Amino acid sequence: MPSTTSSCERPLILLTCGDPAGIGPEIVAKAWSHGPSHALARLRIVTDGAVLDHVLRRRGTSGCPPIVPVSLDDPRASSPDTILVVEPTGLSIDPAAIQDKTITAAGGRAAAIAVEHAASALLADRADALVTGPLHKEALRAAGYDVPGHTELLARACGLPDSAASMMLWLPASGNHSALGVVHATLHEPMRSALARLSTDLIATAGQRLHDGLTRLLGRRPRIAVAALNPHGGEGGLFGDEEARLILPAVKHLAAAGIDAEGPFPADTLFQRAFRAEWDGVVALYHDQGHIPVKLLGMHEAVNITLGLPLVRTSVAHGTAFDIVGTGQADPASMIAAIEAARRLGVARVMEPA
Amino acid sequence: MPSTTSSCERPLILLTCGDPAGIGPEIVAKAWSHGPSHALARLRIVTDGAVLDHVLRRRGTSGCPPIVPVSLDDPRASSPDTILVVEPTGLSIDPAAIQDKTITAAGGRAAAIAVEHAASALLADRADALVTGPLHKEALRAAGYDVPGHTELLARACGLPDSAASMMLWLPASGNHSALGVVHATLHEPMRSALARLSTDLIATAGQRLHDGLTRLLGRRPRIAVAALNPHGGEGGLFGDEEARLILPAVKHLAAAGIDAEGPFPADTLFQRAFRAEWDGVVALYHDQGHIPVKLLGMHEAVNITLGLPLVRTSVAHGTAFDIVGTGQADPASMIAAIEAARRLGVARVMEPA
Repeated sequence: MPSTTSSCERPLILLTCGDPAGIGPEIVAKAWSHGPSHALARLRIVTDGAVLDHVLRRRGTSGCPPIVPVSLDDPRASSPDTILVVEPTGLSIDPAAIQDKTITAAGGRAAAIAVEHAASALLADRADALVTGPLHKEALRAAGYDVPGHTELLARACGLPDSAASMMLWLPASGNHSALGVVHATLHEPMRSALARLSTDLIATAGQRLHDGLTRLLGRRPRIAVAALNPHGGEGGLFGDEEARLILPAVKHLAAAGIDAEGPFPADTLFQRAFRAEWDGVVALYHDQGHIPVKLLGMHEAVNITLGLPLVRTSVAHGTAFDIVGTGQADPASMIAAIEAARRLGVARVMEPA
Repeated sequence: MPSTTSSCERPLILLTCGDPAGIGPEIVAKAWSHGPSHALARLRIVTDGAVLDHVLRRRGTSGCPPIVPVSLDDPRASSPDTILVVEPTGLSIDPAAIQDKTITAAGGRAAAIAVEHAASALLADRADALVTGPLHKEALRAAGYDVPGHTELLARACGLPDSAASMMLWLPASGNHSALGVVHATLHEPMRSALARLSTDLIATAGQRLHDGLTRLLGRRPRIAVAALNPHGGEGGLFGDEEARLILPAVKHLAAAGIDAEGPFPADTLFQRAFRAEWDGVVALYHDQGHIPVKLLGMHEAVNITLGLPLVRTSVAHGTAFDIVGTGQADPASMIAAIEAARRLGVARVMEPA
């Protein structure tokens, strides 16, 4: 089959709505109506068209354009005037089974099947990037999927262990700050276990993935800083020895590999410097060290980018937000930023020599 | 001796320059020239006048007003036109012994003696508040003072153990965010020891001091949030048990004591909510949890406020910044904010029934 994507500089980007009971369908529809999203990419929503139509109508999303199913290989451009959906095979969901703001097996199943269908398309080189809306972990479990979230679902679709994938938290530039990418050496685990597990190897791996992800995203060699763990960066050993024992060796390892990495730097001034363009990326050592500053400056604009898998995937950095479903308050900024990041990474992929 | 302060609603505020080799003298002089600082308070700089004059002239601080020594009991108002200094007894420093950007015993001694003199005045009820410039820990040590910093120096001057004092990090409101006070349950120690020592008692003590400090500063009952320790606030126990085991009991203890305290809340969204005026104060569990967000939003405006001692003391939240001494870049915003906080706390003190 001739590839419709790799010969085309407008990457084909597949969007999923996440759990249809949450704000996913609303933010995908709002992002669709954002003209610039279509300027340099061809967009498709992977969903059952009837379910999307039902959900959007029920929520009174005003001025929703007509929904038109297309095949994955349809070469047409996308525009705000018509929502183009690719319907996953095997997704037969009764629209009435989806209840707003409610955890249901139907919602979890709709979300998971869309992601799996999109992943197959990417792995078969029939699309260039995937942008996912927010899942609900419990709905996923109710549907029989024993995975904590998207990243693991995708790692398994790629035939890789969960640990193969990392997440980069990406905040695009705004009037107040420069852009920043953050990769965590430890993430979803108790602080005590994060501190016990922290190692030169975990930090160096995070730095390597951050470097690779930013190189593709920015199209140039990124500048990376590694955060310290302890107050004042350990205050010369007085407040802890991890800086000298674990972190500095990781920085040296990265530098020896040709990566522009510096550190460790005290975390309380590092982010302020990074957001003034001193660095493109930061290796954070634990979840909140990276999430506190990124969410403080860009609660609605932050994007998750999956690293370490053989496909391009970005995601909103927020949840299903059941509390504001149908109120019109859902902010599509993160979805729009995720589409833009996917476009850049998709173009990098398209331009790469085979 | 009749008190010149407690009968007066304009509190008498003593300023110290910290280590004269750092930016302290410059930022105190710049803050002095800020008219509003004098509107509702009487300011004095506790220093050897000759040293201050020498340092400011050497750095070419333009338009420095004349320096006039006054006694502590002099009732006159202060103004930007004349710098009023109170010379500490026992401070005989050769101005030439102070070298810019250099750690010297003379610099450490000048800083420590000024603070001790000011503390005596406050404890004798001859002044209402103290605002301190940045010290250099090593200069202090070179001068024979075996204390890590101001707070311990002051605790000892009050005849109290170091642990009696807490620090509140205070960021005044700006166009971008509401005001916020932060008290830490653990502070200057390795993360591993902070996690091992964290207890319901430490968290509740921090909450009580935060409540007391904010009540005086704001003149009303403050709303307080307590941060969670683990990612996603522990994710219902999946990512750690400190939330249920240590933090929630502390919040309940505070609420039972009549304090408007809530929590624990996941730290990565807590600060974003707090800076939109949802709370007046946050109990942070470790140094960087509080310092990352405060320094990110207000690197130059943040103030330290000492809690737990029988005197009012505020301080700049930055260091001696040897790298920018004499360049004219030193930003007096933190010193100006520290004077304003001291004024509010000093007025509260003056207005209190004896």
